[in-house]
Amino acid sequence: MKKNEQVKASNLKVIPLGGLEQIGLNITAFEYEDSIIVVDCGLSFPEDEMLGIDLVIPDITYLKDNIDKVKGFMITHGHEDHIGALPYVLKEINVPVYATKLTMGIIENKLKEHDLMNNTKRKVVKFGQSINLGQFRVEFIKTNHSIVDAAALAIYSPAGVVVHTGDFKVDYTPVFGDAIDLQRFAEIGKRGVLALMCDSTNAERHGFTPSEKTVGKTFDSLFSEHRDTRIIIATFASNVDRVQQIINSAYKFGRKVVVEGRSMVNIIETASNLGYLNIPDQTLIDVEQLRNYPNEKTVIITTGSQGESMAALSRMASSTHRKISIVPGDTVIFSSNPIPGNEKAVTNIINELQMKGADVIFQDVHVSGHACQEEIKLIYSLVRPKYAIPVHGEYKHRKAQAKIAAELGIPKENIFMLQSGDVLEMDDNRAVVNGKVPVGAILVDGLGVGDVGNVVLRDRQHLAEDGIMIVVLALESHSDQLVSGPDIVSRGFVYVKESDELLDEARLLVDEAVQDCLDRGKTDWGKLKSTIKDVLSDFVWKRTKRRPMILPIIMEV
Amino acid sequence: MKKNEQVKASNLKVIPLGGLEQIGLNITAFEYEDSIIVVDCGLSFPEDEMLGIDLVIPDITYLKDNIDKVKGFMITHGHEDHIGALPYVLKEINVPVYATKLTMGIIENKLKEHDLMNNTKRKVVKFGQSINLGQFRVEFIKTNHSIVDAAALAIYSPAGVVVHTGDFKVDYTPVFGDAIDLQRFAEIGKRGVLALMCDSTNAERHGFTPSEKTVGKTFDSLFSEHRDTRIIIATFASNVDRVQQIINSAYKFGRKVVVEGRSMVNIIETASNLGYLNIPDQTLIDVEQLRNYPNEKTVIITTGSQGESMAALSRMASSTHRKISIVPGDTVIFSSNPIPGNEKAVTNIINELQMKGADVIFQDVHVSGHACQEEIKLIYSLVRPKYAIPVHGEYKHRKAQAKIAAELGIPKENIFMLQSGDVLEMDDNRAVVNGKVPVGAILVDGLGVGDVGNVVLRDRQHLAEDGIMIVVLALESHSDQLVSGPDIVSRGFVYVKESDELLDEARLLVDEAVQDCLDRGKTDWGKLKSTIKDVLSDFVWKRTKRRPMILPIIMEV
Repeated sequence: MKKNEQVKASNLKVIPLGGLEQIGLNITAFEYEDSIIVVDCGLSFPEDEMLGIDLVIPDITYLKDNIDKVKGFMITHGHEDHIGALPYVLKEINVPVYATKLTMGIIENKLKEHDLMNNTKRKVVKFGQSINLGQFRVEFIKTNHSIVDAAALAIYSPAGVVVHTGDFKVDYTPVFGDAIDLQRFAEIGKRGVLALMCDSTNAERHGFTPSEKTVGKTFDSLFSEHRDTRIIIATFASNVDRVQQIINSAYKFGRKVVVEGRSMVNIIETASNLGYLNIPDQTLIDVEQLRNYPNEKTVIITTGSQGESMAALSRMASSTHRKISIVPGDTVIFSSNPIPGNEKAVTNIINELQMKGADVIFQDVHVSGHACQEEIKLIYSLVRPKYAIPVHGEYKHRKAQAKIAAELGIPKENIFMLQSGDVLEMDDNRAVVNGKVPVGAILVDGLGVGDVGNVVLRDRQHLAEDGIMIVVLALESHSDQLVSGPDIVSRGFVYVKESDELLDEARLLVDEAVQDCLDRGKTDWGKLKSTIKDVLSDFVWKRTKRRPMILPIIMEV
Repeated sequence: MKKNEQVKASNLKVIPLGGLEQIGLNITAFEYEDSIIVVDCGLSFPEDEMLGIDLVIPDITYLKDNIDKVKGFMITHGHEDHIGALPYVLKEINVPVYATKLTMGIIENKLKEHDLMNNTKRKVVKFGQSINLGQFRVEFIKTNHSIVDAAALAIYSPAGVVVHTGDFKVDYTPVFGDAIDLQRFAEIGKRGVLALMCDSTNAERHGFTPSEKTVGKTFDSLFSEHRDTRIIIATFASNVDRVQQIINSAYKFGRKVVVEGRSMVNIIETASNLGYLNIPDQTLIDVEQLRNYPNEKTVIITTGSQGESMAALSRMASSTHRKISIVPGDTVIFSSNPIPGNEKAVTNIINELQMKGADVIFQDVHVSGHACQEEIKLIYSLVRPKYAIPVHGEYKHRKAQAKIAAELGIPKENIFMLQSGDVLEMDDNRAVVNGKVPVGAILVDGLGVGDVGNVVLRDRQHLAEDGIMIVVLALESHSDQLVSGPDIVSRGFVYVKESDELLDEARLLVDEAVQDCLDRGKTDWGKLKSTIKDVLSDFVWKRTKRRPMILPIIMEV
């Protein structure tokens, strides 16, 4: 073997398979010789133009092609953008999953839904514990985030150590458990770290993200100010600490608590069973029991803080919730900020709630789960990596972190703004993007995984814009004589009952064109169809300035 | 005539025909005996679920039904949400339009496009001037806003005066022309005002909106910091003062200015012709001349600050603009905030620009055109109305103003949270909502005005979600024998080339069901169609968990 090749074979490869072009879809492969470990396996939610799509998962062709090397998934925390694709991916590559206790609990809920519990190897990892997998050793390090049990990973390889923060913030006074293990970050940093892959979500924001505990104080004062009304609080289902703090305030002020919304009920049950929630006896009541208590002695914790139309809060606001309706005087608190893209939906529901007479509080009852600039600087200063690879966030967020890294003295050529699919080869001497693996977004629609692609989406967009006009006609098979039609059926184009004339005129025009085609003798069906399309779309454009999809169907009789 | 009726006949009626349930669609009728005047005539932009719709205009049935009374439109300023529906409405009710000079200039651009110049009576009004229309006198009062020449209206009727602020802010140091005429507001207020209809857009925001001039200072420092790069600034096409300030900075720093984007070119031309813009000679150059100057000696002012996919900035970012491409080092400034609902589109384009290597500045280079809480308090305190009618804004904004009005001592029963269509009857003794007139949103799609309604929209939503499956078959007319088909054609459902099996299976199933139906003798086509729908939708749901539209078409041969 030549020396060159040997050096090359002993590089550490970092290969993000998603997550760098959008929020979500987080999944990164680390490869060293015969070993691959994968960090996270997230989904993303469909963009506006992905009509009818339920969710999006990453293309894992590269892992399938190298299945013999893949040792397992290391999961940093239990949010959908880090675990949501697991059930789909595990059906294709059955490798073990490693995660902390609550994270694993949430993953298991998913595996049960997909009937994957029996054939998925799972190992719960403690903070400080290391997992040996092929050429890698992976250490789970305690961090703080908007879900408990979040971990950073120290990934040890013969070529050096990579520290991956996962999603994190620095919370010196967390609600549950310990603060982020800054000492361990320092210790690992002191020994020399090749690369830091750090959360960029809040890299545009100055300062420090406040402690989760500050929200608890806010709840206390809100409960104190609204002693005479029912209180309804919407927040993220997975924010167990937030729920804990609401329960604390409720208990303090002598209120009973109802939890509404399927996802929240599930997570609270899981967190409670695993010991992450401390609920005083007789505080939680069933929604049916609400009627036994005066309004001012109850709190409802609910999903729907993002204005999701099917969530419990939306149903309460629109009086379609079977058990709870908003009544004048209710205090409704949004303990959340709108996720980008949801602003309008959230505003709409606030309007609706106010119209029902609720007093709606939607500012300053939330803190972020992500590190701001000063926290990012802190982690860089403890870890002191040779290379910086900003992750988690849109391009602009990652770019903001790259700027911070540069300010902290990391040479520009050591800061990598990767794209999904890039193969970053690293050792102590150099780091270089060397090649590209296939990546992409696989669309999930109902039971279909990947059967909706660009062609189908383009059709849906076309149909959504101006509807469809279907032209049907029947030809005698030997003679090519028109024996029925052409008839025109439309959907989503115009209100048919009031557009008789337009459609009649269109039919006549198509009839003429078809007759004309047929009169010229033996007919090419392709030509006949394109004639119909041309004639009809011209006519419709002139008369309506719309471009419905035009679909000629010829039957042979 | 009985006394009661006489009193009733002499009330002033305020009838909002739109604008209270959404941003835009501003139009309010004021009626006294035989006279109606209408304030503003705006459009609104379609909600997300209004697929394929271009714009939305108000239902003016009430005005058509009372056309003999309608004296004219009084327009407060030249923004789309106050003038955009005029060309459509004037086609139905041809009454005069009154507005200040620039506002009229912008209206005339629209009338020209719709070929309405010759048969629309127009009158340009000066600030301080009053117009007598039937029982009304309407005075135009100078205000400040994000477009020049904005007016408040004092509407004098025998039953009392209503002050309508239009959209406004208080700018003590405006870029062009005078500050808001606070003295006149005070004078009118001193004599007694029945009702104040005040802009609520920023009623949730504390403090004072900064002067437009502060943005000029920001431009100066940005130009000073970026002397070595090209500068591209995106802002609202209609913000003439903003454009003036960019031109001022460009001139100061020796740069040539190019204006890009059709709507901006149009408004700048109009504003310039009417004397609202002061452009030093040889500062403005044509886009073709850009190549004659070094990058660092040019500024491009462009549309697209809201991330609109067809606007000039988007085309520059995606390299589909024919004359300008983003190059690494370009400084791109967003002198705007995203309008609610556009946040994601704006973020996407910022990412795209950064990926092209541009330095993008998108914070703190904009001030609002709407009054914050302290300005609203100021206007209330000058006008001292008996009744408060918060307008312009979503429910939550109007509610926030109602709270302010209450804090200022207006009794709660004198504060009216109206709905569009409400008829508010007022005189010195009382104000009461008495009746309802028809209102609504008329959808404009291409040339069609109102021909797309709920049925068509529901079909478009259905088509967008899961596509369509069309089942065609031909029956012999006398015997009801199946002579062709059933065939299945789908669009927007699955990628057909990879779903042969599924579609074959579906066809067989439908075939069986059809045969079964036909075997039972003389067939009801309605029943046959519903059988096809049921069989096919069951099958598709079971196999895919999707619900495409299913459209059976039977041909008679």
